[in-house]
Amino acid sequence: MPVKNGAINVCYAQSGGVTAVINAAAAAAEKAVRADKRLGRFYAGQNGILGVLQEELIETWRAPVGIWQKLRHTPGGTFGSCRIKLPPHTKDRAIYERLFAVFRAHNIGVFLYNGGNDSADTALKITRAAKALCAPLTVTAIAKTIDNDLAMTDTCPGFGSAAKYIATTVAETTLDLAAMAATSTKVFVLEVMGRHAGWLAAAGGLAAADDSRHLILFPEKPFIRASFINALQKKVHNAGYAVVVVSEGVRDKRGAFLSAGGSDAFAHRQLGGAAPVLAEMIRLDAKVKCHWAVADYAQRSARHLASTTDLLQTEALAAAAVRYAADGKSGIMPVLHRLSDTPYRWKVIPAPLAKVANKERAMPPSFISKDGYFITTKCRRYLAPLIKGEDYPPYVNGMPKYATPQWQQTTKRLPPYQYQS
Amino acid sequence: MPVKNGAINVCYAQSGGVTAVINAAAAAAEKAVRADKRLGRFYAGQNGILGVLQEELIETWRAPVGIWQKLRHTPGGTFGSCRIKLPPHTKDRAIYERLFAVFRAHNIGVFLYNGGNDSADTALKITRAAKALCAPLTVTAIAKTIDNDLAMTDTCPGFGSAAKYIATTVAETTLDLAAMAATSTKVFVLEVMGRHAGWLAAAGGLAAADDSRHLILFPEKPFIRASFINALQKKVHNAGYAVVVVSEGVRDKRGAFLSAGGSDAFAHRQLGGAAPVLAEMIRLDAKVKCHWAVADYAQRSARHLASTTDLLQTEALAAAAVRYAADGKSGIMPVLHRLSDTPYRWKVIPAPLAKVANKERAMPPSFISKDGYFITTKCRRYLAPLIKGEDYPPYVNGMPKYATPQWQQTTKRLPPYQYQS
Repeated sequence: MPVKNGAINVCYAQSGGVTAVINAAAAAAEKAVRADKRLGRFYAGQNGILGVLQEELIETWRAPVGIWQKLRHTPGGTFGSCRIKLPPHTKDRAIYERLFAVFRAHNIGVFLYNGGNDSADTALKITRAAKALCAPLTVTAIAKTIDNDLAMTDTCPGFGSAAKYIATTVAETTLDLAAMAATSTKVFVLEVMGRHAGWLAAAGGLAAADDSRHLILFPEKPFIRASFINALQKKVHNAGYAVVVVSEGVRDKRGAFLSAGGSDAFAHRQLGGAAPVLAEMIRLDAKVKCHWAVADYAQRSARHLASTTDLLQTEALAAAAVRYAADGKSGIMPVLHRLSDTPYRWKVIPAPLAKVANKERAMPPSFISKDGYFITTKCRRYLAPLIKGEDYPPYVNGMPKYATPQWQQTTKRLPPYQYQS
Repeated sequence: MPVKNGAINVCYAQSGGVTAVINAAAAAAEKAVRADKRLGRFYAGQNGILGVLQEELIETWRAPVGIWQKLRHTPGGTFGSCRIKLPPHTKDRAIYERLFAVFRAHNIGVFLYNGGNDSADTALKITRAAKALCAPLTVTAIAKTIDNDLAMTDTCPGFGSAAKYIATTVAETTLDLAAMAATSTKVFVLEVMGRHAGWLAAAGGLAAADDSRHLILFPEKPFIRASFINALQKKVHNAGYAVVVVSEGVRDKRGAFLSAGGSDAFAHRQLGGAAPVLAEMIRLDAKVKCHWAVADYAQRSARHLASTTDLLQTEALAAAAVRYAADGKSGIMPVLHRLSDTPYRWKVIPAPLAKVANKERAMPPSFISKDGYFITTKCRRYLAPLIKGEDYPPYVNGMPKYATPQWQQTTKRLPPYQYQS
């Protein structure tokens, strides 16, 4: 990449749980930076803010030609992610002085942080510290989370693809169970992510036209064992079988996680996982054979089943973040505003980080059916467009061809620094 | 379908755990029957042999036009499956008399049973009973099992697609883990099926060029906790993280399933699942953060990621079964014979059911690496062609369009009969 005269450099970093499309955000950001005359080189922090603090900056322009095209269809976080929460500058001024020293040393005037609630918090703290410490830095966040729980936005990059994977998996496993139910397994439980919000669990509802064979357990609804078993048994009785989609974040009335055994029944120590706990309850109370699966990382890295809608939104948000940053708008996260359901139309608008950081958007009550075990038509109308379109990665010898570039870090110009949490 | 004069009718049924491609076998069998002048109508047993005994026979020709095309890309078992083991005719003659009465009542002279080891056993028992009771019936088995543990065949319909799903899932979750490892999760465990043989676990090895970051736990190798933790820690130390693929059938030295807690360490009651047990061991012994997933039904119903090789072989075997049956060859299962690895070439040959029934083909020792935790080059050469090629289902509104026909059963001609196991 030719260096543009007088242009300020950009540092991009990935944070929190990675997704099937976060690398597509990186590729879109890089493309937007390259196209903007006001912006210079595109650095990337190794492992999020950790690498920035430790001056582990990747010189992305040294990568082989065509790498961004390949990263667009590669899951995971190519630059490494982190789970680190910074203290505010009022508590730890030194950490921000170090951060700004790194940026200054590499002529970086724009910081793009790609993450969820926690990352928005980090971005906001950096914005405030930059102001307080008079550092010439524009901070913009790029939204990302499969949990879909960011405030201010219609949806979150990564969610649509995870939702498509979950809906497809529920559709497929339902057909499997239906074939087995006559003489064997009658209940199948799929555990999905979403510790605080039931959006991913709700996506399972897209696999079913109605609630005649499916139950969804949302973290928004306290789990009541007897009520659940009763609802389950009705479905098994009427349809011959039932599929349960359970959020990892489901808790009982006293607030104890189901994955920790709940507070009511299980004296023995648990190994974690809501699905096995639920399966055991079903065996004990409903006395039917039960199979269970836990999607875990598979649901957020399933790039082989990405949603085109999700990809397009991811790219639009990343490009907008660069645009806002080049305009000098700091403390912003571009978000999605829905204009209509059918056809699904949306636009990108800026949201102040202060309105996004540390907020969690739960499912609205109108999205959960009256009995608490399924999605409403309103929820379906919301979810349906988000999983639309297929964007397959290329395959070689039967396997998706994903990019795993060996990134090169820049030569350090500052004294060594070890981050201590 | 026009009835062919003088042609004998065919009854097809599905048995055991269903797969992503067993309906493709049904479609290929139906097509072959339709094309053969010697054969008449294509009946299907509802829920395998159970429906045949109870005279619950589906008149498949009443289905809407184009249904077979759709079933080719629909997972699960459209006619319902069963887990039923018949006694031999020397122990229970009456059950076979009933069976042959059903066949006679509908002019059925060919029985095609689509399943694994147990189903081959059922098919063999019916073959022998037909001979002993002088029933005019030709019995042919159509191979099927994601476990890949049928004797006599190079591979089993359903395995290639499950293997492709597992290999892809391991590749994707490895990228996810690699991004998280610096500050968070360092080990990811994926549990796959295969209670008696490690073929599915071995497929995870296709996601990695070598064993530097991956461990596979095979049921063929007794699990030794200290050795495993040691091997795992070496990988975490050298690569920063490690992915474990564990077969549900892994046992310790005393033969106790890991999923039942093993016999060594865990005093508390388990909920089943090798992955959570392993994850707990890793947390306790290796003291690193660990995520885990259980694929369960998802791995055998993932038609969205089917292997073209698997589909072609499935169709070839089903068509061959019809051909053998039309020729009057009873007690046969068509199997795959490998002619070469690269290019992968194979042909269909007949195998006597007696050589298939109740046999289980474990991984050969030469397919497992010396330390017991990975696949060898020889194994990779064997597995690689089986996952080749993508055969996507059609999508509508972001979801695979699967067929769920409402099949119609034939009018019963015999007195009611209730199967008692």
